[in-house]
Amino acid sequence: MKEKITVIKVGGKIVEEDASLAALLDRFAAIEGRKVLIHGGGRSATRIAEKLGIESKMVDGRRITDEETLKVVTMVYGGLVNKNIVAGLQARGVNALGLTGADCNIITAHKRPVKSIDYGFVGDVDCADGDMLSRLIEQGITPIVAPLTHDGKGTILNTNADTMAAETAKALATVYETTLIYCFEFPGVMRDPEDADSLIATITGESYRQLLADGIISGGMIPKMENAFNAIGNGVAKVIITKADAIDGTHGTHIIA
Amino acid sequence: MKEKITVIKVGGKIVEEDASLAALLDRFAAIEGRKVLIHGGGRSATRIAEKLGIESKMVDGRRITDEETLKVVTMVYGGLVNKNIVAGLQARGVNALGLTGADCNIITAHKRPVKSIDYGFVGDVDCADGDMLSRLIEQGITPIVAPLTHDGKGTILNTNADTMAAETAKALATVYETTLIYCFEFPGVMRDPEDADSLIATITGESYRQLLADGIISGGMIPKMENAFNAIGNGVAKVIITKADAIDGTHGTHIIA
Repeated sequence: MKEKITVIKVGGKIVEEDASLAALLDRFAAIEGRKVLIHGGGRSATRIAEKLGIESKMVDGRRITDEETLKVVTMVYGGLVNKNIVAGLQARGVNALGLTGADCNIITAHKRPVKSIDYGFVGDVDCADGDMLSRLIEQGITPIVAPLTHDGKGTILNTNADTMAAETAKALATVYETTLIYCFEFPGVMRDPEDADSLIATITGESYRQLLADGIISGGMIPKMENAFNAIGNGVAKVIITKADAIDGTHGTHIIA
Repeated sequence: MKEKITVIKVGGKIVEEDASLAALLDRFAAIEGRKVLIHGGGRSATRIAEKLGIESKMVDGRRITDEETLKVVTMVYGGLVNKNIVAGLQARGVNALGLTGADCNIITAHKRPVKSIDYGFVGDVDCADGDMLSRLIEQGITPIVAPLTHDGKGTILNTNADTMAAETAKALATVYETTLIYCFEFPGVMRDPEDADSLIATITGESYRQLLADGIISGGMIPKMENAFNAIGNGVAKVIITKADAIDGTHGTHIIA
């Protein structure tokens, strides 16, 4: 029987504010057993880019990453946000290790090909190394993964944190019984974001198509759902979308293959 | 018999310019066997702090690290500089892993007590974990260490890279036959920096006292020499001060206990 592992993905908003970060780290530290945290950091990147006089260009919520912006996200995601999480978890008795995809070569990617939009130094993931990650994890280490990969030729690439979470969970699923939890600002996928009672408890491939057709799932939720289905369809045991204050695996929307 | 390891410390100037960084990474990749790189990054930190409108205050070449400056060095050392080195080494076939002292709790420190000067969030090293480092190294991993430690209570601390190199080498010396190489801008300690033939091949405790008395070693070289003697007096097999283009262990000034 495989050992269990929990992979948590949290967005920038949660990890960039002191109070919500502290609450998250308390809850993450309380999760028993093997675990991995994957974090965003976009708001800090935007704020620091602005202070440095670098304009943040977004297309459909995705950042256009020119050379100067790449430096900013490398600093902010790999340094500021990641290391504050690592230090905060060490203070809570978790032996955290901050990683980008370049560290131990855990996640390789290629620069996204230019089609209608040139996203710049943005990575599409090729491979996450579940063996390397599990060797670290079996030493009692908890990986804290920043949304950066590398191309193996010396270039860091800005990479979507939801995608990195799905790819990391898939790679870990070859070794562990893996639960992937996406945290966002709602208790789960809602029929009506204004109505707290409208949580959708489970979404299957079939009900997903209907929710899309009905316009209940749209915009930025679509790539998140696609990452969730990618994970559940590729060996990940459980995929849950929930609020950051409910990461014990019992709340939220469960994605069913 | 202990296995051998080489610990290289390079200053900010070398790792912050593309050409000198590439040359260093080529040479570092060519070193056989187990190795660790410890880097600075002060010039980039100063430049980015300036762009962010944060004044860099230095006392005797040491940075006063207020809360805003701590954010800058965490970003620049732990993110920008460290991850570029890691990605550059991965491209050269070295399985590099970027670390601060907080990662895997490898180097703990305490905030420097305020005496005549308040250095702010600056760390004085308490302990480097040679066992944890060696467990990583025995997996084929090459640690790349940024000059940041943590206090174990959630706070990152800006830490002198020369000191971190000495403490890391001392901790590794319990496991490995350790060579520590400090790189700087000269071929070694010079009697006369203007005279390329004035390299001092070896310095002992006794000759060091004389060099101090004669004013040949002064200023910023004194803490470097003290770190070197700290290492050689505490189990490190070889300590060498040399130029970054001569890190094969045969050049430079050898420090003798």
